[in-house]
Amino acid sequence: MKLQPVGFIKNRIEEPFLVAGGAGLEMRGEFDSTMDHVRELRQSISEIVIDESLVALLDGIEEYSHLVVLYWAHKVTEEGRSLTRVHPMGRRDLPEVGIFSTCSPARPNPILMTVVQLCGRRENVLEVEGLDAVDGSPVVDIKPYVKDSHPQEGVRVPDWMEQLQKEVREHGRGDKG
Amino acid sequence: MKLQPVGFIKNRIEEPFLVAGGAGLEMRGEFDSTMDHVRELRQSISEIVIDESLVALLDGIEEYSHLVVLYWAHKVTEEGRSLTRVHPMGRRDLPEVGIFSTCSPARPNPILMTVVQLCGRRENVLEVEGLDAVDGSPVVDIKPYVKDSHPQEGVRVPDWMEQLQKEVREHGRGDKG
Repeated sequence: MKLQPVGFIKNRIEEPFLVAGGAGLEMRGEFDSTMDHVRELRQSISEIVIDESLVALLDGIEEYSHLVVLYWAHKVTEEGRSLTRVHPMGRRDLPEVGIFSTCSPARPNPILMTVVQLCGRRENVLEVEGLDAVDGSPVVDIKPYVKDSHPQEGVRVPDWMEQLQKEVREHGRGDKG
Repeated sequence: MKLQPVGFIKNRIEEPFLVAGGAGLEMRGEFDSTMDHVRELRQSISEIVIDESLVALLDGIEEYSHLVVLYWAHKVTEEGRSLTRVHPMGRRDLPEVGIFSTCSPARPNPILMTVVQLCGRRENVLEVEGLDAVDGSPVVDIKPYVKDSHPQEGVRVPDWMEQLQKEVREHGRGDKG
């Protein structure tokens, strides 16, 4: 199973905020600055530059408000790909769980997925909001985001994930007011 | 960018219902039987058999109600990977659009994504509902499904996609009574 990049991501995010090493995942900075970073990412604009030879594959894409972007976490090392259990986001206060129970970029096949808002298109360039990828990440696929395929009711997550989500939301609110 | 399968999908779906060839996408059967098929898929149970050496990566997964499954559409040929524009679901009555505007399995990197309900786990085997994959598909990744990352408001899709979604929903209702 070999992938070919269909394009690249351009933005101002130079380094991932999570680093995978021998000791598992580590946050690059302090918790507060990481939360600022997460929130900033969710509001920042990235460009997805699709290979010019593939521009016809984008026909009709501007009729969607949101897209699913699959991209390759190119900064994840071989060592990162062989991690098995981590503290989510490198937080020692959260329980250690298996990689498939987390959104960690370090995973056997480091394909990351983000739902983004499509803000505009200029030929082979898509301008999107909320793409938490590092500059230069190879794009693997672009798919339509369709609400019907994404349940909103009866969705359950572990307590630690609930807590993380709440912290991101509240940190954002705190900063705004 | 090389992928290694982390497991395989086991179910009773032997053939994809869409076939990619020189003429684009084609439905394997008539529209009504295809709609039955789509509905059946969404309700059927599949097993995801994870490689035994990776079982620790599943730790904690049973605390989620839903998962995102990335898998490889292994029946897509090289010819299918080079399609550019198709009639969605092979339907000539719908406008021809670029592959990235569709959920077609035939795409440059044939990684498909489905949100499934997790029904149970026995060690390295996950029992899930709604996985519209063909038997034997290699699994690329398993991720948590987290509601906050999936917008429900302000989501817009093209008219043809709206129509397709409506047909799937109504066909299901019609059959039930």
